[in-house]
Amino acid sequence: MKVLVIGGCGFIGSHVVDSLLSRNHEVRVFDRQPERFRPALAGVDYLFGDFADRMAMIEALTGVDAVMHLVSTTFPGTADLDPRTDVIDNLGGTLSLLDIMTNLKIPKIVFLSSGGTVYGVPDTVPMPESHPLRPINSYGIVKCAIEHYLAMYQRTRGVASVSIRASNPYGPRQGHSGVQGVISTFLNRAFSGEKVEIWGDGSVIRDYLHVTDLADLCVLALSSDKTGPYNAGSGVGTSINEIVEVIGSVTGVPLEPVYKAARSVDVQRSVLDVSKAKVDLGWSCKVSLRDGISDSYEWLKNWKSRQG
Amino acid sequence: MKVLVIGGCGFIGSHVVDSLLSRNHEVRVFDRQPERFRPALAGVDYLFGDFADRMAMIEALTGVDAVMHLVSTTFPGTADLDPRTDVIDNLGGTLSLLDIMTNLKIPKIVFLSSGGTVYGVPDTVPMPESHPLRPINSYGIVKCAIEHYLAMYQRTRGVASVSIRASNPYGPRQGHSGVQGVISTFLNRAFSGEKVEIWGDGSVIRDYLHVTDLADLCVLALSSDKTGPYNAGSGVGTSINEIVEVIGSVTGVPLEPVYKAARSVDVQRSVLDVSKAKVDLGWSCKVSLRDGISDSYEWLKNWKSRQG
Repeated sequence: MKVLVIGGCGFIGSHVVDSLLSRNHEVRVFDRQPERFRPALAGVDYLFGDFADRMAMIEALTGVDAVMHLVSTTFPGTADLDPRTDVIDNLGGTLSLLDIMTNLKIPKIVFLSSGGTVYGVPDTVPMPESHPLRPINSYGIVKCAIEHYLAMYQRTRGVASVSIRASNPYGPRQGHSGVQGVISTFLNRAFSGEKVEIWGDGSVIRDYLHVTDLADLCVLALSSDKTGPYNAGSGVGTSINEIVEVIGSVTGVPLEPVYKAARSVDVQRSVLDVSKAKVDLGWSCKVSLRDGISDSYEWLKNWKSRQG
Repeated sequence: MKVLVIGGCGFIGSHVVDSLLSRNHEVRVFDRQPERFRPALAGVDYLFGDFADRMAMIEALTGVDAVMHLVSTTFPGTADLDPRTDVIDNLGGTLSLLDIMTNLKIPKIVFLSSGGTVYGVPDTVPMPESHPLRPINSYGIVKCAIEHYLAMYQRTRGVASVSIRASNPYGPRQGHSGVQGVISTFLNRAFSGEKVEIWGDGSVIRDYLHVTDLADLCVLALSSDKTGPYNAGSGVGTSINEIVEVIGSVTGVPLEPVYKAARSVDVQRSVLDVSKAKVDLGWSCKVSLRDGISDSYEWLKNWKSRQG
């Protein structure tokens, strides 16, 4: 199958590309810029452009059998700063994509949604896919609207879709600037001997998923005839304070957290029920938190040493 | 209170203006064009422009105490034809409005949402406001996203909001071109002695609300300190075939329905539970279906006779 990976040079995208190649799919990548942490891969067709550029998207989509849509111009922590731009870029851009896919009769899309934001404040933990969608921040509102439109395009325009509601992915090649993920950010601080900052008291519970497990689920979903939403998480809740401990233990560098005021975007406890992906897609999470953090730290040390 | 009514020259808007004036509010109207069915009202400050024009909106919002947001550039039956334009115009436009309100510190907005589309296919009938939001068409997806953003702006930016989830409003000054409402369309056909077309077998159940009852609820909500969603309906389900019967009886012109294939946008049964508006806002529906249809037909006959 020839697959277009939109956002294929990003953190998650680069692992999805690896997973597709390992299963002998043909891969075209569309992204704004080359991968940051490794050179271009042999055998991958790279196209660079803007997600909002309709003609560039038409060119990228021509001749492909399926689409992995992994692009977001915003992060959960940044989208609230300018919701209108979040809507125009990400929701508007996705609707352009779906219109082009309809015209070109491309029958399948896997969309990277957000298990951490589409549900809002949970009624039950862990949350199944049937939990009501009550997003409380712009990132989640846009993901939720995109999921609704995917269902509509599937019903009325013949574009089958799976939404992967990812929890908190982490792993090699994640950015560590502070907006992408707490594990990569903290590992970077540990490496540099800096203090870490924690919003709140560190009791906030999240569901951390190694990026290779997430990438495998995306590829399984693309090849399956199943449609609709699938949670993607470990199914296990871990507090920020536990992350701090594991990182201290793995790196041998005990972190010294500085506790700051809690953020309004954070719900207290978010853990996903992933039994639907296990049953329907035969997927399971293979990398333990400790192994995954160790693996991420090895990558970080290598990267830093190559940077000199 | 000085109130800006955005969409104040439309069908619902014109009745909201009447209701505001009857309660001695000061009214400014912003719309694309003057009212279609009556001359400009004395004492109302009219501004004409485009909802997407940010500078025009800033001018319109300056000096007002509260906003009635009744504008939609689409109808439930037309929005699916171009979802991206629906999103840019209505969701993007509303986010611009909310940003301007935040900057100008305007503390309250009442938004006209859609009880017929935000819930999707009902789990229970009648539906309370706590029913999950699972819209299946673009009109409902956009209304749902706007409601989520209203809650976010209320929590984070000090703009209090009420969303009025209206069922199927009807009454004097409703357009009768076939996209606005079945009652006005059918009355117009009855007046002209034309056949009426029904999508499906006429068993589809809707909740019809007279526009003056809806307008009163909007004004009660604006003056209240309550926030969040409120259903606005009669609480009673009526089939299309019953509407046809009542219209035949009121007009003395028996309609001859032509039954056509059902539309994918229609859910079979949509009736709203309106007890929350009754309890919280002291509102109740005053106009019976028969009286409301009679009143609408009187208006139509007068309008037609004035047209010659």
